[in-house]
Amino acid sequence: MTLAPIYLDNNATTRVFPEVVQEMVPFYTEQFGNASSIHAFGEEVGGALRQARRSLQALIGAEFDHEIIFTSGGTESNNTAIRSALAANPKRTEFITSKVEHPAILSLADWLEKHEGVTVHRIPVDNEGRLDIDAYRAALGPKTALVSFMWANNETGTIFPVDGLAELAHQAGALFHTDAVQAVGKVQIDLKATEIDMLSLSSHKLHGPKGLGALYVRKGTRFRPLLRGGHQERGRRGGTENAPAIIGLGKAAEMTLATMEQDLPRIVALRDRLEAGIVSQVSHCFVTGDRRDRLPNTTTIAFEYIEGEAILMMLNRQGIAASSGSACTSGSLEPSHVLRAMDIPFTAAHGAIRFSLSRETTEAEVDRVIAAVPAIIDQLREMSPFWSSDGGKAQFNPEYA
Amino acid sequence: MTLAPIYLDNNATTRVFPEVVQEMVPFYTEQFGNASSIHAFGEEVGGALRQARRSLQALIGAEFDHEIIFTSGGTESNNTAIRSALAANPKRTEFITSKVEHPAILSLADWLEKHEGVTVHRIPVDNEGRLDIDAYRAALGPKTALVSFMWANNETGTIFPVDGLAELAHQAGALFHTDAVQAVGKVQIDLKATEIDMLSLSSHKLHGPKGLGALYVRKGTRFRPLLRGGHQERGRRGGTENAPAIIGLGKAAEMTLATMEQDLPRIVALRDRLEAGIVSQVSHCFVTGDRRDRLPNTTTIAFEYIEGEAILMMLNRQGIAASSGSACTSGSLEPSHVLRAMDIPFTAAHGAIRFSLSRETTEAEVDRVIAAVPAIIDQLREMSPFWSSDGGKAQFNPEYA
Repeated sequence: MTLAPIYLDNNATTRVFPEVVQEMVPFYTEQFGNASSIHAFGEEVGGALRQARRSLQALIGAEFDHEIIFTSGGTESNNTAIRSALAANPKRTEFITSKVEHPAILSLADWLEKHEGVTVHRIPVDNEGRLDIDAYRAALGPKTALVSFMWANNETGTIFPVDGLAELAHQAGALFHTDAVQAVGKVQIDLKATEIDMLSLSSHKLHGPKGLGALYVRKGTRFRPLLRGGHQERGRRGGTENAPAIIGLGKAAEMTLATMEQDLPRIVALRDRLEAGIVSQVSHCFVTGDRRDRLPNTTTIAFEYIEGEAILMMLNRQGIAASSGSACTSGSLEPSHVLRAMDIPFTAAHGAIRFSLSRETTEAEVDRVIAAVPAIIDQLREMSPFWSSDGGKAQFNPEYA
Repeated sequence: MTLAPIYLDNNATTRVFPEVVQEMVPFYTEQFGNASSIHAFGEEVGGALRQARRSLQALIGAEFDHEIIFTSGGTESNNTAIRSALAANPKRTEFITSKVEHPAILSLADWLEKHEGVTVHRIPVDNEGRLDIDAYRAALGPKTALVSFMWANNETGTIFPVDGLAELAHQAGALFHTDAVQAVGKVQIDLKATEIDMLSLSSHKLHGPKGLGALYVRKGTRFRPLLRGGHQERGRRGGTENAPAIIGLGKAAEMTLATMEQDLPRIVALRDRLEAGIVSQVSHCFVTGDRRDRLPNTTTIAFEYIEGEAILMMLNRQGIAASSGSACTSGSLEPSHVLRAMDIPFTAAHGAIRFSLSRETTEAEVDRVIAAVPAIIDQLREMSPFWSSDGGKAQFNPEYA
């Protein structure tokens, strides 16, 4: 008997809810008309799009539904926000972000710095991944066009205090954007109660379809489109509306909001159970990130003196899907830029494994992972030069301490 | 008994082939893993993506599959191509395009001209929509960074001789891009036999899903990404791969290529039958565009002295879906910029209706449209001040001649 596989890589992408797919399919083959057309093949599309926009509005607590611009994903939303803020404020040429952002922010920042005359401040974090607020205050100034800090880190789950960070940006006359791709659906968000000007989100991180995201732009915020074309999204994003995907995201948002209050405490409890179960059994490992303010679903555990990729493969053989660092930087032998920014030693960063749960994760699954991990770590450490074998049980070789 | 509705608005968007949806769905709910991850939930994704890329490669005759970059649609492809060419050739600051391009080209051109110091040449067309080649030659020069001409016009179907136009661009040391959103799947394309450097296409125009497109970039072409982020698409387009949609487009490309040789002559015959059936029965109307070199599926007929929107609504009541101008410019009371560029008189351009067929269109459908149109035109002309009623049959009032 093969056990059902266990998916703990929800920060990379999530399973699309079957109910979401069910909502989408008729808009591929029946109500497939262009939302801008006036005929029977698209007559239900307009209404369904409005409903989807309102469902997403409710999930993020936006004051107006037209503050939402649908995009092709988190990367487009992030690129749009940054370029818009710089283009709309040409007298300000500085951009503040952190060292632990997603590549969709950092690689654009690198480009802007090298080729477009933008001064970039990359604010450091401490060894729990918390932002250095003093460094941020010091970087803010009359030339700051935009501040962009992620709401929650994709690798460690560490949450930045974006409300307060936005207020500081405004005191300096700068716009504030947050990459909330990992936060939406996992923390309560009420944008109208904050000073956040722009927020990026991604559909496929919350059980909606891939290839869709949104950029929230607060009413009154100066904005410049990145994709110019037709009049769609009130002239702020050209291109035929991706109606099936938008309707799918709307459904995912509605389902997420409906069960969030019950789901989040349960997910935290499962995550904490997983964490405690592993850490209590395995020596020389530790949980990364801010233990007091983290996403409910995320834990990245650093297993010292072994390779994360090897752990992943052995987990995979037992049907357990997890991740080392983010999917967007995989394929590289460098340890995660996030863990490096936190000054996690290389010997630990190389063996970091992220387990990211979802509302579909069960206690039985967590217990299977808890049962599997210690033996895997032991087995790998048996082969590690840093360890010595003692009757089949790997022990840390004190000469490396 | 209600008759089944007839869809003749395939240049706006197409019905997704049921086989395409069937291919896509498992990648939402089963093989939903991030294509960059290494675990069982995504193990089939990589192979399926490679296969899809090859299917699209075959449809457009690209030499290498890695010349294809998947994007979120035609608008993103067009914006990427133009911005890339300008960024990669900073010493050249001129851009040549035509007056009849899609808004995804023209509205970006307007912006670049007004705000980014780019000189834009908009080459005119004659009254059949054919490009003024002399004006194009005259505009080319040592400052030309990029030429972008559409392969086929979305409104009239007029085909531009892109092979030759690309050669002229190269003689001036400029890059050549073509917006082939309307051409792919409707004409034979063999890119490796041309000098075209970049080509844009859109999935939902060929029975694939919305929210996906591709940009072909010939190997060796200087390129700058528009969306910066992860390493996806060989670092040329950040963002989690939209695997279900890419796999859907691959299937649509495969199906299109497999039946193209049989389909195209049949579609031409149906289009010609529709055209002849209408024009032979209705006075004061004419077919627009280049009668010798047009897309097989497209006809735009200008009905003089009446309003296109009114015709559309009456067609819609009989279950017939067509379009006035392009969906991307609908909602505007201005007549189409394409027909204006062709010097079609306002009194005719206002009453232009586009019928765009697909490989799903049947002879019975065409015959129903032929039977419906004359009475609709008559009825509207009865109400028009330009016409006088003569025993229930509208006749053009000669004082307006």
